[in-house]
Amino acid sequence: MNVLANIRIVLARPIYGGNIGAVCRAMANMGLSDLALAGAGAFDQVEARKMACWATAILEGSRRVATLAEALGDCALVFGTTARLGLYRQHTRTPREWAATILAAAQAGRVALLFGPEDDGLSNEELAQCHHLVRIPSTPEYPSLNLAQAVMICAYELYAASGAFEPLPEKSPLAESRMKERLFAMWEEMLLEIGFMQPDKAQHMMLGLRRIFARGALSEDDVRILMGIARQTRWYAHQPRSRPPG
Amino acid sequence: MNVLANIRIVLARPIYGGNIGAVCRAMANMGLSDLALAGAGAFDQVEARKMACWATAILEGSRRVATLAEALGDCALVFGTTARLGLYRQHTRTPREWAATILAAAQAGRVALLFGPEDDGLSNEELAQCHHLVRIPSTPEYPSLNLAQAVMICAYELYAASGAFEPLPEKSPLAESRMKERLFAMWEEMLLEIGFMQPDKAQHMMLGLRRIFARGALSEDDVRILMGIARQTRWYAHQPRSRPPG
Repeated sequence: MNVLANIRIVLARPIYGGNIGAVCRAMANMGLSDLALAGAGAFDQVEARKMACWATAILEGSRRVATLAEALGDCALVFGTTARLGLYRQHTRTPREWAATILAAAQAGRVALLFGPEDDGLSNEELAQCHHLVRIPSTPEYPSLNLAQAVMICAYELYAASGAFEPLPEKSPLAESRMKERLFAMWEEMLLEIGFMQPDKAQHMMLGLRRIFARGALSEDDVRILMGIARQTRWYAHQPRSRPPG
Repeated sequence: MNVLANIRIVLARPIYGGNIGAVCRAMANMGLSDLALAGAGAFDQVEARKMACWATAILEGSRRVATLAEALGDCALVFGTTARLGLYRQHTRTPREWAATILAAAQAGRVALLFGPEDDGLSNEELAQCHHLVRIPSTPEYPSLNLAQAVMICAYELYAASGAFEPLPEKSPLAESRMKERLFAMWEEMLLEIGFMQPDKAQHMMLGLRRIFARGALSEDDVRILMGIARQTRWYAHQPRSRPPG
């Protein structure tokens, strides 16, 4: 079962078509598809389609209803978002803290995430219809996010927590110590041969080089490239030259 | 030291003023302030100011440079964002995976996060100037995020990892078992008194009620409200009535 299909984004009284479109795109990016617009006025359809980009199917499939009650009626759990503090807003948690609860509830029934209008967010009456409150981390000086940005962060946290995203497998495993010791031996021989260091200074210099190569993890592919450089340097150094090197 | 001040957002060849403004607002939300625009054309300034909202100071303070080299020259570490896979793009990690590395590097020097243009992202030449690659989790069917949304998610992950965000303290602690037992005793008396249950069924019914109240964590404030209901119900039931209840 795809739990993300059971999560509805509800925009209360949204104003700007551009934001509504951007919400659709953000939802598509994060695997959501159920959008309801409650009490939306006549917004700019051209702007909405433009910002929805390839996600116009979500815009076209969205339900437009007059009241919040219609948008939330079939939802088992309603999460309201708020940037402001104060009355009714004490018990907020972050989207990341709520993600597991939301996904677990979406296994059993429909869950709504409710977002207020661009200018002043959800009213107290609207907040009262929410079972839980979400507050997105942001700076105290500038806590108010753009509507579509707020939807994106909530959707992103749900998608990340859903386990649907598969990171790319690292193609080359980390090189083991044995392999790296062969690398250092090859570089030591090479650096001695080209006269970069004298035998009595070799140990000291090799410690510096080991430190450099230890600053980040080396994959087997990385080690093969570095071995190749040592090999090629020695080969090139042995080539007959038409004139002595400058 | 504020590490976020050492993190620069670099937009390579951005096209739309609205996106540039929305990037400014997202940065302000997440405590970032250093913005560079590399190779930007003549974008819509009105749209940019509108979407920047209260964050026009970041727009006005942004550096406009011709080449990426100028934007990145004083950065110790450069992270490039890419939605596409393939050549040069194998070693990506998510913004959350990179966040600790980025913040640690920003303690010591400047770090750049680089974002490509809206239409096709960073070129191979631009990716070659990055030390590490970032890939934002998104659906395989629809991986391409709006530019400002991509900036927001990266900025949000950095802000969240920086520890700057302080969650609101829960005002009321969780109620302890002792207090909840007093609550159940009060409800049992009350429910017997109003005849909701008979004494021989009381234990069974109380198990049901305990289960209901155990579905979510109850704070001390919650328990006090529920105790008040039991108390008031008994008080009201004892009041003389002018006529028998219907």
